[in-house]
Amino acid sequence: MGVIAAGQQPQDVLAQELAAEMAAVNVLIRERMASRHAPRIPEVTAHLVEAGGKRLRPMLTLAAARICNYQGPFHVHLAATVEFIHTATLLHDDVVDESAQRRGRPTANLLWDNKSSVLVGDYLFSRSFQLMVETGNLRVLDILANASATIAEGEVLQLTAAQDLATDEAVYLQVVRGKTAALFAAACEVGGVIAGAAVPVTRALHDYGDALGIAFQIADDLLDYGGSSALIGKNTGDDFRERKVTLPVIKAVARATPEERAFWVRVIEKGDQRAGDLERAVALMGRHGAMAAARDEALVWAERARAALTSVPAHELRAVLADLADYVVARIN
Amino acid sequence: MGVIAAGQQPQDVLAQELAAEMAAVNVLIRERMASRHAPRIPEVTAHLVEAGGKRLRPMLTLAAARICNYQGPFHVHLAATVEFIHTATLLHDDVVDESAQRRGRPTANLLWDNKSSVLVGDYLFSRSFQLMVETGNLRVLDILANASATIAEGEVLQLTAAQDLATDEAVYLQVVRGKTAALFAAACEVGGVIAGAAVPVTRALHDYGDALGIAFQIADDLLDYGGSSALIGKNTGDDFRERKVTLPVIKAVARATPEERAFWVRVIEKGDQRAGDLERAVALMGRHGAMAAARDEALVWAERARAALTSVPAHELRAVLADLADYVVARIN
Repeated sequence: MGVIAAGQQPQDVLAQELAAEMAAVNVLIRERMASRHAPRIPEVTAHLVEAGGKRLRPMLTLAAARICNYQGPFHVHLAATVEFIHTATLLHDDVVDESAQRRGRPTANLLWDNKSSVLVGDYLFSRSFQLMVETGNLRVLDILANASATIAEGEVLQLTAAQDLATDEAVYLQVVRGKTAALFAAACEVGGVIAGAAVPVTRALHDYGDALGIAFQIADDLLDYGGSSALIGKNTGDDFRERKVTLPVIKAVARATPEERAFWVRVIEKGDQRAGDLERAVALMGRHGAMAAARDEALVWAERARAALTSVPAHELRAVLADLADYVVARIN
Repeated sequence: MGVIAAGQQPQDVLAQELAAEMAAVNVLIRERMASRHAPRIPEVTAHLVEAGGKRLRPMLTLAAARICNYQGPFHVHLAATVEFIHTATLLHDDVVDESAQRRGRPTANLLWDNKSSVLVGDYLFSRSFQLMVETGNLRVLDILANASATIAEGEVLQLTAAQDLATDEAVYLQVVRGKTAALFAAACEVGGVIAGAAVPVTRALHDYGDALGIAFQIADDLLDYGGSSALIGKNTGDDFRERKVTLPVIKAVARATPEERAFWVRVIEKGDQRAGDLERAVALMGRHGAMAAARDEALVWAERARAALTSVPAHELRAVLADLADYVVARIN
């Protein structure tokens, strides 16, 4: 673990080690998000892209390609592809969730309108598609096409699972795979595939990304009941207000007394939310150990992510990816 | 023209000649629009897909493949791909336009909600992507990726061009290429490409589809000021209410007196529309020959479509495609 200085966070180490390639990714993103004909497009995308974000997904692609000893140049295209897909889904998510804040700034649907967010999202998705076709690698295209379908399916499932206390942990896992883990898994896998890595290695990279994504999303869903708005760049309590049935809610509902269950029915199913309800929800989660239980599950997925890496070639970045799995859960504390 | 019986419309002849393959396309569409996890998806897509529509785009793909002597099976995948892309854009269009009626039925955004329309559109787009990857043909993927980007760009351009009387015929043409001609052109071209046709042939098929799409859209935009709701399955005057600057408007504005110009500024730019305004708009278009001039342009594009076919192998379906170009404009009368 020679590349990690004491106290440095794994994603900062990744950013540092991959700085030259990430610069190329950023050039490509800026170039391809432009439009000769429709100036609204770069306005909207610049707002989102320049807000930064962690760029975790493209770094996963670049790291996987480097670990598999790829000499380029198409890992840069694939990293940009993955970021475009991510940005497109954010634009559509914010329309669907009627969100007002993203990455600490007002959302595009608030600054422009829902129409622009829908259509610019479509544009970015089609641009991502052009980028991946340029690689000329059919296996990569197959992986990304399947990931796109899983993402869209997960989003629709989330829509129907929200406001429904019958949503169980299996449905939650399906939603999480769609909204987060599918793209993490594809981002890692295509980095190995473009490098010509053997199937056991690309499968391990997929499994790492899948488990990392699930750990990441469980942690995110916990932070929504505990983090501060400044820290995670979105508003705490968003999921509660949107009546999403996330893991801490599922666990608290499973252990609820009849009186508590009536509370959950009112706030989640009926959407009748009053002052103090969010605080009461958090208190109920604490009382039944729902937060701790959800955190334990995130840790199990982080451990699975680490374990998957044993089938990946030894490399100093492999150690950073292993630490990243712990880190996404450690954010909760 | 042995396959055309007297009085039969060209698209009915296509439907009849391609019936067996269209049955296979419909099976594939039904199979792939399903979702194991999210039942909302087939509900929404069935509503749209079963409303019928003319299925013109998939028939163009099948016809092009047959003219180029393709033996299958991937023209069926490509025809379904093209219909999925079309259906996905309809779902997103209806959200953007806040439409209430499509193909003579209430729109999905009205029956479910905008969220479902956005996300199910994304799902269909990703399913189309999976279907085209299955063909394993990188040139086909390149053509469809580029068409997708042109479609999305055209939609955004339409958004910013609406409500703006400075929109000229060049911008209009760009919008029309995006919203209609790009997919018509790609639908025709990929039919030739999958059949291994020579570049002059696939280019001619592209040019035919492009010109056909433009003629079709100009005619559609004219019908919006003259057709009846029952005839075209949407409400006459939709474009006027949505303040879209289509070809007859551009031509009427170019010839407007100062007083007439004030009318157009009020109804299109300011969006202050009153009872009788649609009728007045139609009257102004008639007075300046705007409708006739737009119709003449549609005829020029239809002629270009016919002319492009001279570079395509002689075939009885080629004659039907030629007649189709005349027919899409003849609808206006």
